[in-house]
Amino acid sequence: MTNDSIQDGWFTEKSDLWPGQGLALKVKQVLHHAKSDFQDILVFQSESYGNVLVLDGAVQVTERDEFAYQEMIAHLPLCIHPYPKSVLIVGGGDGGVIREVIKHQAVEHITLCEIDPQVIEVAKKYLPSLAVGFNDPRVTVHVGDGVEYMKQHAGNFDVIITDSSDPIGPASALFEQPFYAAMRNALKPNGIVCTQAESIWLHLDLICNMKRFCSKLFPVVGYAWTSIPTYPCGQIGFMICSLNPLTELEQPTRSFSDTQLKSLPLRYYNKRIHTSSFTLPQFAQVALDAVDNEPEAVAASQAATSHVTLLRERESAEELANRRDNEDAEDEESEQPSEKPEQVEADASTDAS
Amino acid sequence: MTNDSIQDGWFTEKSDLWPGQGLALKVKQVLHHAKSDFQDILVFQSESYGNVLVLDGAVQVTERDEFAYQEMIAHLPLCIHPYPKSVLIVGGGDGGVIREVIKHQAVEHITLCEIDPQVIEVAKKYLPSLAVGFNDPRVTVHVGDGVEYMKQHAGNFDVIITDSSDPIGPASALFEQPFYAAMRNALKPNGIVCTQAESIWLHLDLICNMKRFCSKLFPVVGYAWTSIPTYPCGQIGFMICSLNPLTELEQPTRSFSDTQLKSLPLRYYNKRIHTSSFTLPQFAQVALDAVDNEPEAVAASQAATSHVTLLRERESAEELANRRDNEDAEDEESEQPSEKPEQVEADASTDAS
Repeated sequence: MTNDSIQDGWFTEKSDLWPGQGLALKVKQVLHHAKSDFQDILVFQSESYGNVLVLDGAVQVTERDEFAYQEMIAHLPLCIHPYPKSVLIVGGGDGGVIREVIKHQAVEHITLCEIDPQVIEVAKKYLPSLAVGFNDPRVTVHVGDGVEYMKQHAGNFDVIITDSSDPIGPASALFEQPFYAAMRNALKPNGIVCTQAESIWLHLDLICNMKRFCSKLFPVVGYAWTSIPTYPCGQIGFMICSLNPLTELEQPTRSFSDTQLKSLPLRYYNKRIHTSSFTLPQFAQVALDAVDNEPEAVAASQAATSHVTLLRERESAEELANRRDNEDAEDEESEQPSEKPEQVEADASTDAS
Repeated sequence: MTNDSIQDGWFTEKSDLWPGQGLALKVKQVLHHAKSDFQDILVFQSESYGNVLVLDGAVQVTERDEFAYQEMIAHLPLCIHPYPKSVLIVGGGDGGVIREVIKHQAVEHITLCEIDPQVIEVAKKYLPSLAVGFNDPRVTVHVGDGVEYMKQHAGNFDVIITDSSDPIGPASALFEQPFYAAMRNALKPNGIVCTQAESIWLHLDLICNMKRFCSKLFPVVGYAWTSIPTYPCGQIGFMICSLNPLTELEQPTRSFSDTQLKSLPLRYYNKRIHTSSFTLPQFAQVALDAVDNEPEAVAASQAATSHVTLLRERESAEELANRRDNEDAEDEESEQPSEKPEQVEADASTDAS
């Protein structure tokens, strides 16, 4: 890519992934433009969205609306998991996901595995409000390939968050079954993964296919979404999978107090948004429900559950004891585990089926 | 406006209402471009969004995603109101809202009050999938000013839907208090209004101001939203106000069966989406909650309720009898009134306060 995407002072984001449409942002100043070993990296100061990071022509973050994405991809899995101590972030070199993960006091170790070191450098220089979390003592940065890293760290993580760019270029493998299998193997028992999973308005087939293979690997699989102005169609989603068959994705086990929402701060996520983010427009709900009704689905669900049984056997008595100690300690922290909400009435929850 | 908005085969929507950003759509063919007495009207065939109607440079509908808007602005109020017989649509000359309203068998009369007859003509020619509802025998089209029409029809409507363009040009008055007072006076007792109310990402101050004056006029006021790719920031909302102080906006009293969702068809709206559409990102929830806590709010709420008392006195015994007859009849229709869902636990519902 050259600066052809900027004409008459406007950047326009065009791609074969969203043909015939494009977001235009007015440019005040180009701050950085270079080719790394992996991709084209452009940073510009926009007139109304702050600084903007563009990889291979696609907007990754703008300072004005990035929180809608970072908060949702981080707090959805971290508030579902009852005791997230060890977190792996694949991608996310801008630091935005780290910034959200460190808001959870329960988290003890965060590893960021980013393939392109230049993204990290650029973020530290031009996106300081995102990169702030790199200084947290719980954070370790590993520059390298996510799948290789996970192979070397089997059974290590409570939560894996994959903050990837689109399924083209260096991130394309992150939307395929082998990557999800690698994540599964890198999880502790009852672990959860949450990955960038594109937009229902543009890539519903891709999302359905992801749900199809995720359901073979995990007993609990769901899709949630967020509103975000500068992503194509103004919306992006997340595939969330849990190894614990009892997980209710829509009902977080942990929540932020009103004081925390204000002070941390959280600008998009709250408990009600968590629950409603799993509610889809009828056309998308019908398509995703259809995946569950495919002939393979029942067998796949059984296979996923038997894998969980194996993982549970692997879970040692020591680990269980550690967890109990940790749960006791957590009661004294400000992140209070919330009581399970009542089920929403059956009529409503089956309405879109 | 001239065709300056189309360059190198791309239409770009730029406006002072959303500075520094714009949606670009690839143009296959300009189908119509003319200036009416009220506004510039452009219709083009796009490469990936079907035919597109543009008024004064702002995208009004595209054939690909218009259903997200039309379904929500129509079915939110019509599924909240327990017996919507008489419906007024202000604006909506493209016919899309009519198409959704006629899906409700309970509705007996629909009046469309559109100020610009050329919008209707253009829609009939170039947007036939929207304009299909003009043929329904329950529909009356009135070409003229909405406020004048409502003054002549006080106390006439169960539901008023205002499908307006942005608060600039002919629609600007539709975002101000006198218009909402006119709607209130045109409602029957227990009536509901639902209006296009812009995006939380762009016009939160405007939305807060609308909520402020609506709360002086109506005892129940809420803001719901929909995802829609071709509106600025990919999102637009609705101000919904009820004269019945007992109305629970998030809990529809009427719902579509699974068969109806498929056959009518509905592509965006379902009962779960209805409820979740009132859940806002934390930054917007905080801003809108703050309006309730302003000093004037309590007094305004009392004033709105006393107006309702007057309206209730106006409601004659005959009207009450009619309604009971109608409710009995409706039980035999396919639109089944649903049971009230249980309240979601207090913790969740107060989380964002």
